[in-house]
Amino acid sequence: MKSNLPLDADRLWSDIMALAGITDPARPYTRRSFTALFLEGRNLIARRFAEAGLTTRIDTAGNLIGRIEGRKPELGVIAVGSHSDTVPSGGRFDGIAGVATGLEIARALRDSGTRLDHTLEVIDFLAEEPSEYGLSCVGSRGMTGSLDGKMLDLVEPGGEKLRDALQRVGGDPDRLGQARRSDIRAFLELHIEQGIVLEAQSLDIGVVTSIVGIRRIEISFEGEADHAGTTPLHLRHDALVAAASTVASVRRIAEELDREGSDYFVATVGILAVEPSASNIVPGRCRLVIDARTTNPALTTRFVAAVDHESEAAATAARVRRSAFATLSDGPPVACDLDLQASFRKAARNLGLAQTDLPSGAGHDAAFMSRICRSAMVFVPCRAGKSHAPEEWADRDAVAAGAAVILQAVKTLDRSLQEA
Amino acid sequence: MKSNLPLDADRLWSDIMALAGITDPARPYTRRSFTALFLEGRNLIARRFAEAGLTTRIDTAGNLIGRIEGRKPELGVIAVGSHSDTVPSGGRFDGIAGVATGLEIARALRDSGTRLDHTLEVIDFLAEEPSEYGLSCVGSRGMTGSLDGKMLDLVEPGGEKLRDALQRVGGDPDRLGQARRSDIRAFLELHIEQGIVLEAQSLDIGVVTSIVGIRRIEISFEGEADHAGTTPLHLRHDALVAAASTVASVRRIAEELDREGSDYFVATVGILAVEPSASNIVPGRCRLVIDARTTNPALTTRFVAAVDHESEAAATAARVRRSAFATLSDGPPVACDLDLQASFRKAARNLGLAQTDLPSGAGHDAAFMSRICRSAMVFVPCRAGKSHAPEEWADRDAVAAGAAVILQAVKTLDRSLQEA
Repeated sequence: MKSNLPLDADRLWSDIMALAGITDPARPYTRRSFTALFLEGRNLIARRFAEAGLTTRIDTAGNLIGRIEGRKPELGVIAVGSHSDTVPSGGRFDGIAGVATGLEIARALRDSGTRLDHTLEVIDFLAEEPSEYGLSCVGSRGMTGSLDGKMLDLVEPGGEKLRDALQRVGGDPDRLGQARRSDIRAFLELHIEQGIVLEAQSLDIGVVTSIVGIRRIEISFEGEADHAGTTPLHLRHDALVAAASTVASVRRIAEELDREGSDYFVATVGILAVEPSASNIVPGRCRLVIDARTTNPALTTRFVAAVDHESEAAATAARVRRSAFATLSDGPPVACDLDLQASFRKAARNLGLAQTDLPSGAGHDAAFMSRICRSAMVFVPCRAGKSHAPEEWADRDAVAAGAAVILQAVKTLDRSLQEA
Repeated sequence: MKSNLPLDADRLWSDIMALAGITDPARPYTRRSFTALFLEGRNLIARRFAEAGLTTRIDTAGNLIGRIEGRKPELGVIAVGSHSDTVPSGGRFDGIAGVATGLEIARALRDSGTRLDHTLEVIDFLAEEPSEYGLSCVGSRGMTGSLDGKMLDLVEPGGEKLRDALQRVGGDPDRLGQARRSDIRAFLELHIEQGIVLEAQSLDIGVVTSIVGIRRIEISFEGEADHAGTTPLHLRHDALVAAASTVASVRRIAEELDREGSDYFVATVGILAVEPSASNIVPGRCRLVIDARTTNPALTTRFVAAVDHESEAAATAARVRRSAFATLSDGPPVACDLDLQASFRKAARNLGLAQTDLPSGAGHDAAFMSRICRSAMVFVPCRAGKSHAPEEWADRDAVAAGAAVILQAVKTLDRSLQEA
């Protein structure tokens, strides 16, 4: 990897570490969207935006945006960014690395006396991680006209509506249309890989070809909460027996689809809740949530059909009722912009960085941004693929290398977008 | 069924219904041991004990005891009772019917001018149901010298030790030895069947021949809480996949043992907890609790060996670690006293009640009491065998018939125990 990058790796690193310090001390690293800690983190980001000469505002969808006017503002905006919220007990890089990259690019351009023709915006999207309101990518949905009134009425366990929370963090739910953008020409996002492909092959840069679609399915089984001592096995209606069989089905069907070919497919049962959850009571009710992701929607269709069939058969075998089989959410896969991918590849080559193409198994703000502009992503390696966990780690130079690729692509785009 | 029973069926019924009214209103019928509601229930019982002329105390093991001194107190005590705590979202009869029976017997004896030679005690045992401290039959363990210091150090999720909870409800953990009894000659317990044998055969009375032994086993699996989108299936360490496989094993092995012969065998996974329990995170940790019950301990030994083998294989297949395979509790099966069983059969015959012998699939305080005195149980039918659930139901006359059998047996024993 080249060490003489056209930006300040230490300065970039210090931003990331400064944000990491703003965490719930009881469970690092936690900075949940809409909390006081989240707003404290944003205050830090806004201060650093201002120090870097960016004008700062919060749009009506709650996104924190720093802006440097271009020499030809009529050309529109090149945007770089990600998010600053975390999952509970998350890591120091997921999201933040992309926001800090945007900030460092603005500073590096200033330091080198470079003023772009396009306006540059650095965006900290609101609530990319699944929030307490049951919704992810709140800010990028809002910026792309994908946040509707029904979503604003979502309620967190404490009773607050998303609408009111959005107001609380500086947005304006009654004027969401103002956040909808038509002036952004390109969106570029750096993110840690959250997987082990780059590390395993000792690569510096992953050029993301597509972002998986995510289907979430809820299944509930209703049996009978009978006494575990006095109810003979053949008279039971055990909801957990049906749920356990479904967990096995999900894994087996996913493995079969994954083995079929080159498409990416994974499926997970991450939530399984048993009621009443007592050692001496036969489970009367079980709810599970399946998360299925793929670059090929046809595989999801087949997956859902197979799980539908097998979970119904599991209910029949366990003499319980499958009371719910519902789609909680369904985001299609998104292909990253081909020209932007080419810019990233060229930049990585110029910088002497080892690279590969790969799909993103995680959802990102870039998936929503692709609805309104060319969008693409650069992945940087993270240790052992760990993410959404305190041990999440990316090396200083690895983040800086990814940021340098984005910086060079921004410069290239500033010209090439005018030629297009 | 005879209707002219030697006790007041309505009065007995009104006690049961009054207790049922003392419930968590959000989830009837819930009166968990050690809670404020539990103490409110006990206050009602203590008032009715006093109205019936019983002297009332709480022993050092937290049992509420009403007492009528016999004409020959040197003969010792005949005890009747059960418990007044419930499982979460439990029923109106489990436990309470037995306590109310003891109370009604004391009143019926008083009303008929009968004073026993033996002292009569009516006992409401503390925390028969599995408590938040992970232990059941706290009071009957204490009365029989089976509650040790290690158990007193058990901690509920809120951090309170059982020792401190016991103090809080009127017990004295430092003087537990005082609760240990050697003066009780016989213990008689009425309980709803919690099964469907009596109802299916239209019988009034079940004379319990033995109480199943209960083994509780905890299994934990430790995997890796990886990102559900970016972690390929073949690289996962999914704790839930191993746990689901174990749930299936437990059911299959139990069915095989049950089919073998005449011995009773059931096993249940009633608790299965997933961590971190998020739709987009591969389960990193799973804990499940198995409850296995039988009248033949040899079957439990074979069951545990098979589950040990299969859960270890499930861990290996899912590439996780089986971090715990522990016996939480192990109570052997208990045969009910043959002479008491004979008294119950004779009483039922005299009262014109239809009866059968049957084992108890549920554990009861009588199982512990058998360690210090002759003990036996009478079952009365309950609707559809439902128990540990709000729809748990026993008819007024069915409970009264069972109480009449116990009353007649008490009278018989008051004579026969002097002849023995």
